[in-house]
Amino acid sequence: MPTAQPTPASNAPQLPHAAPPDVEIMTIGDELLYGQVIDTNSAFMGQELGKIGLRVRQISSVSDRADEIVAALDQARQRAQVVLITGGLGPTKDDLTKHVLARYFGSELVMHEPTLRHVEEIFKRFQRPMLDVNRQQALVPANCEVLHNAVGTAPGMWFSDQGTIFVSMPGVPFEMKRLMTDHVLPRLQAQFHIAPIEHVVVMTAGLGESFLAKQIEDWEDALPANIKLAYLPSFGAVRLRLTGSDDGLPDLRGRMLALLPALRERIGEYIFAEEETTLEAAIGQLLLAKGLTVGTAESCTGGMVAQRLTSVSGSSAYFRGGIVAYHNDIKQQELGVKSETLAEFGAVSEATVREMAEGARHRLGVDVAVAISGIAGPTGATETKKVGTVCLAYSDATQTITREYVLDRGRALNTEYAAQSMLTMLRQQLAQAEVRPLQV
Amino acid sequence: MPTAQPTPASNAPQLPHAAPPDVEIMTIGDELLYGQVIDTNSAFMGQELGKIGLRVRQISSVSDRADEIVAALDQARQRAQVVLITGGLGPTKDDLTKHVLARYFGSELVMHEPTLRHVEEIFKRFQRPMLDVNRQQALVPANCEVLHNAVGTAPGMWFSDQGTIFVSMPGVPFEMKRLMTDHVLPRLQAQFHIAPIEHVVVMTAGLGESFLAKQIEDWEDALPANIKLAYLPSFGAVRLRLTGSDDGLPDLRGRMLALLPALRERIGEYIFAEEETTLEAAIGQLLLAKGLTVGTAESCTGGMVAQRLTSVSGSSAYFRGGIVAYHNDIKQQELGVKSETLAEFGAVSEATVREMAEGARHRLGVDVAVAISGIAGPTGATETKKVGTVCLAYSDATQTITREYVLDRGRALNTEYAAQSMLTMLRQQLAQAEVRPLQV
Repeated sequence: MPTAQPTPASNAPQLPHAAPPDVEIMTIGDELLYGQVIDTNSAFMGQELGKIGLRVRQISSVSDRADEIVAALDQARQRAQVVLITGGLGPTKDDLTKHVLARYFGSELVMHEPTLRHVEEIFKRFQRPMLDVNRQQALVPANCEVLHNAVGTAPGMWFSDQGTIFVSMPGVPFEMKRLMTDHVLPRLQAQFHIAPIEHVVVMTAGLGESFLAKQIEDWEDALPANIKLAYLPSFGAVRLRLTGSDDGLPDLRGRMLALLPALRERIGEYIFAEEETTLEAAIGQLLLAKGLTVGTAESCTGGMVAQRLTSVSGSSAYFRGGIVAYHNDIKQQELGVKSETLAEFGAVSEATVREMAEGARHRLGVDVAVAISGIAGPTGATETKKVGTVCLAYSDATQTITREYVLDRGRALNTEYAAQSMLTMLRQQLAQAEVRPLQV
Repeated sequence: MPTAQPTPASNAPQLPHAAPPDVEIMTIGDELLYGQVIDTNSAFMGQELGKIGLRVRQISSVSDRADEIVAALDQARQRAQVVLITGGLGPTKDDLTKHVLARYFGSELVMHEPTLRHVEEIFKRFQRPMLDVNRQQALVPANCEVLHNAVGTAPGMWFSDQGTIFVSMPGVPFEMKRLMTDHVLPRLQAQFHIAPIEHVVVMTAGLGESFLAKQIEDWEDALPANIKLAYLPSFGAVRLRLTGSDDGLPDLRGRMLALLPALRERIGEYIFAEEETTLEAAIGQLLLAKGLTVGTAESCTGGMVAQRLTSVSGSSAYFRGGIVAYHNDIKQQELGVKSETLAEFGAVSEATVREMAEGARHRLGVDVAVAISGIAGPTGATETKKVGTVCLAYSDATQTITREYVLDRGRALNTEYAAQSMLTMLRQQLAQAEVRPLQV
């Protein structure tokens, strides 16, 4: 059997595109269509391609059927000059991408000796008997350039066919990521000389997408033609993403950052970070900067606020503890809520969360405590309080403030939004207030 | 402005397909192509469509550009008879799906009064001023049938065009899910007369997919040809789904249920339900049946165990409260953990979680308490305990038992798996042990 003769990418014909090429992502596998697996590979590829200035034109997920893969390849090459393919390279018989590609390019499968040795080494290392299906992992179409898969048995394959580049990678995320980083991204960068795209992200919480849009409308309308704004909402937070494409002028990023002061003037109080981060991480930064400790008292959220605060690595430096006071006995016994308060105002009231927050602050010995009580639903409504009513409190050495909201998203989402509202309130207070540590 | 005249789906022309139609999923949004958002909608739709016997032919993610959306629509209708579209229906200016669809179908946007009233109600409920962009959410193409969005402002839209059905839904997952369940799935079922598919689901926790597969290999191999088994793993639980397709014989479902006793013989101790439910809901059923109350003491999971137990509606009947004892002071002060225990064995030890569980049981006045302490990572390792070490305890009136595991998935997943292990241990103990209520 002949060995594959790879043609180095440098020898591949320079493609006739002055503009950066569009990229198409094709993920192969019935499990994607059945919804048994969520496609996270495309998001990773999209992010990495964006960083080197390549735009993803479309993402297509197709079945393991040969005819449908071929149809998708035909359409992809009409849209894009680079087609990145993942999946269908495993040893099991339902994985046939490799065979389809060989036929698609009128080529034949040949044994690639370096890959075969690599596969043999891997099996030797794990002291596993090597089966014939494993040997076949080293079979590749004769016309492809093999991309070494340092972390798996299925190699990547680079095809250059009539001005279109096709790259096939395994669907296993960490193998795909390694092939992208080791081979695909550097080769694409080398082959196309592209000016990079810049991204600037501003994280906001506490104001809905449409209200943000309204408040920054004039600012958005005045953006230069090469800078686009996208709103990326999720659970009571909105990520604003500026995408700047090269306009030939110097310091694109600097000019994008120069747009932010005017943005802060309009929505500064809702901005919790000017980088990709989480609300709880931003709260952690504020607490560390001010040398404050925090604790929680939760009823309806059942521990979600504490869990989010402790989801940040290093949170033990400022988070001491929390009380999940679901039953009123616990509210009284662990947080010192007065029975009269519960009797007069009810468990879901600003009076009760005030006592919960102050109780938690003293009980847990923290500088700042937050408290939340609500009716997540679907049951639990009273004649005075409807399902979705949530009361929040923030307490520090100088003040205790409370809020009441009504949510209507169903139990699970009411809980998520309640926790998000609690963290938003906590962050805004920490950012504004001159909170003095107890110790001082 | 005229009001949209919906054509009920029943009047829509019956499509000329004897076989069930193929479905195409189209997700719209630059954020998907940039990889800033992972498309989870498609997986949900694929699963739900599969349950009613419809196959997803292809999933395509396209940009917010009108011409590219139109091109994708043209191709989708060549592959499938049903095209489900999500995304691009928000109030902000980068969302234009609605306008593109109106033009694509040669229609015009008109005000849909019921939707307008629905949007107005939502804003009244939140006591927020309604902006013009919000009012525009009620604009729909005149030729569509409006699908009421019970949980959001952007309605679904059902188009029947030359034998192809197009349905547009918001990209916000919980809104899309609600529209699928309320409208899209029932209408598709009604419009195409599909031979019923039966599903039997068995929920397991505590044994990995490959070990399960091994233990039930003979049972799986003996399944009738028209009954297929799918393994749907997620976070320390594996859902086994039997899908039975019509074989002309009576009582398909009864014959599927008759397969379960043999399954129980093999993996009974890991089965927590024989219906779609959650581990925490199954625990709630056990607690209610036995008349027991429960409480939690958590360190590394920061409240996640309590949050999951309280995520079940009606959990206030058995969940009294929990202590998030992150700092050792809190472990001692709130749970009565001895300083000698912490000094000798450390915070992450079976001795400490034993005292945490017993402390929580007495402190919270509950029949059953669980406790968890671990090193979620990436920091916090000691010379004796590595990152990922997790200690669990279960305590009731008759016994306290402890376990130690080592996880290695990174902070977020370690926390998820630790909470899952804690709940799995709790369920298995409740199912086995003869736990007597304190009161008795």
